[in-house]
Amino acid sequence: MAGGTISFARGAPSADILPHEAVRDAAARALAEDWERALSYGTGIGHPGLCQWVAERHGDLDPAQVMIANGSLEAGAMLFEHLLSAGDRVVVEQPTYDRTLLLLQRLGVELVPVPLEADGIDVGALEAALAEGPIRLAHIIPNAHNPAGCTLSSAKRQRLVELAAEHGFWIFEDDPYRELPFEGEPLETMLSLDQADRVVHASSFSKTVSPGIRVGYLAGPAEQIGKLAKRANETYISPNMLAESIVLDLCRSGELDRNIDFVKAELKARCDALVAGLGEQIPEAEFVVPEGGYFLWLDLAEGTDTVALLGEAKADGVSFVAGPDFMIDGGANSLRLSFAPVPAAQMSEGVSRIAAALARLRA
Amino acid sequence: MAGGTISFARGAPSADILPHEAVRDAAARALAEDWERALSYGTGIGHPGLCQWVAERHGDLDPAQVMIANGSLEAGAMLFEHLLSAGDRVVVEQPTYDRTLLLLQRLGVELVPVPLEADGIDVGALEAALAEGPIRLAHIIPNAHNPAGCTLSSAKRQRLVELAAEHGFWIFEDDPYRELPFEGEPLETMLSLDQADRVVHASSFSKTVSPGIRVGYLAGPAEQIGKLAKRANETYISPNMLAESIVLDLCRSGELDRNIDFVKAELKARCDALVAGLGEQIPEAEFVVPEGGYFLWLDLAEGTDTVALLGEAKADGVSFVAGPDFMIDGGANSLRLSFAPVPAAQMSEGVSRIAAALARLRA
Repeated sequence: MAGGTISFARGAPSADILPHEAVRDAAARALAEDWERALSYGTGIGHPGLCQWVAERHGDLDPAQVMIANGSLEAGAMLFEHLLSAGDRVVVEQPTYDRTLLLLQRLGVELVPVPLEADGIDVGALEAALAEGPIRLAHIIPNAHNPAGCTLSSAKRQRLVELAAEHGFWIFEDDPYRELPFEGEPLETMLSLDQADRVVHASSFSKTVSPGIRVGYLAGPAEQIGKLAKRANETYISPNMLAESIVLDLCRSGELDRNIDFVKAELKARCDALVAGLGEQIPEAEFVVPEGGYFLWLDLAEGTDTVALLGEAKADGVSFVAGPDFMIDGGANSLRLSFAPVPAAQMSEGVSRIAAALARLRA
Repeated sequence: MAGGTISFARGAPSADILPHEAVRDAAARALAEDWERALSYGTGIGHPGLCQWVAERHGDLDPAQVMIANGSLEAGAMLFEHLLSAGDRVVVEQPTYDRTLLLLQRLGVELVPVPLEADGIDVGALEAALAEGPIRLAHIIPNAHNPAGCTLSSAKRQRLVELAAEHGFWIFEDDPYRELPFEGEPLETMLSLDQADRVVHASSFSKTVSPGIRVGYLAGPAEQIGKLAKRANETYISPNMLAESIVLDLCRSGELDRNIDFVKAELKARCDALVAGLGEQIPEAEFVVPEGGYFLWLDLAEGTDTVALLGEAKADGVSFVAGPDFMIDGGANSLRLSFAPVPAAQMSEGVSRIAAALARLRA
């Protein structure tokens, strides 16, 4: 079919918005000015300069509250292994990031599903879950949710932090899309609201620089970060010091902020085109309009089987991820569209292929 | 004291032998010619081009037998988690790499210590351990052992592979120093001798490029590598693709081999100077003269307490790692000297400081 497969499946940007020239220039500078640090072993915290930069980016953190890691997924996995034991009750949003579900299932914890609303997690349902027994940790994706596209309201952020302090559970604030709101500034982090040392925040340069550079971080109570950095050191000595030196150069030179502005504009154009295409071609689709990030979560009419739809869609040269992948139960009539990999000019064609597959599924 | 502390402690090269200009040039080429791969997510195997290169470097491996990882320590940790369960009997050499001991202890396996001889593991003692019950895995460092400095003989390599096939245990061939023999070519790997799919080989570019670049690999039976790559993908999506693209450029351009020649000559000069200094200044020292790598393992007179000696030595501006760190039991009169971080011109001074500390300890 025309132009090959259009994939809405992967949570990754298309190559045309990867800042390869900026990274090349940053690598040249890092390997001229910071080569000894970049090429030597570090410790479990990673590059101290990048810890310092992240601490400043978050306002007034102590650099001892930050550790840099090889992407935030592995950092989160280390946090889970550090804090959780088999049988612990762990709140997961529904839908939620499929890779997190897998990591938690591997640890043998009891998953406590809590639904999402248009403004983030259903706090009433979370309180009901707390009433049934102690919660050890809640995994929360606050901004431009993967896969749901929603953003947690300010009031709910405040309430979650209060509940964590009151009930003594951990909040894992998993926040890779924070820097990518389409308009205005992001809301305050739960980390910044936390007075009780119950929040560990994770973020990443995968969406603001590029995924292949594999640099993410944790920020939280210094005592926990210290223990996690020791665990990181025991596992891999230090994370990738060269990549972190390059990222630090991008941060300090202003290239990071320039790239964030560029990427946000591109993503907004893609999201706008997707929303317009859906309105025209799949009017039954219900969704929260994303205010940032990569993802749009779509509910089709009750009874639609999105796994079967995906089979049809692939034959039409389009792909996405079916809803059940992000759910413990359910999601049968839902699906996730990632607009990050699809240039705006291809969006209408991509949606029309899904619409055609849907029509054929129901024929 | 003159010139600051001389540290024989860390298994890492001094900065003057890090190939920063070659890495800078390779980064520029990788980010011009391979930027899309370098900046995008890969899969659990890492950079396919580097898998291919490693497969060729090992003779005739199928690239599906190779996965690239963020250093060989973490790759080994994943292998242990994949193959081992609490209570499994695991053979460790004595002395052995302290970080491996820690990883194995974390898994709750039963460590079965087997002594080293001048030509590697005591195979008779290993056979005695096999007679006492099944062994699940043997961790073997074949070349320029860390910390013992010895190299496993060809006959013992053959015998270990036979025993693994006969008794059905895994050999983890942990081989970061393979490319650094001071003279001639390295002996054949156990991987290359294995006909029974019982050997998983690990190596690294930490010693041939630089540690901060954090690129290592596993090579072994395709079925196991496939499972491990899936586990890697679940843990960190892909390893660092940018670092791997840079390493691949160094490999293909010939810079890797040029740097190996340079580093081997530097390490040989350091080792020769250390051996000469010990002969002159600490004649009681007994050791296997290293034929490559980074380390020399020293036995002092019976009754010497090297932990106490280290305390004295630090006051004299010299450090090393005391023997007990590498042993389950014993090692009290032994110590490890890493010559990689000490330029040859400082070697005599470093040894004289240890000799002075030893004299004071006994005074």
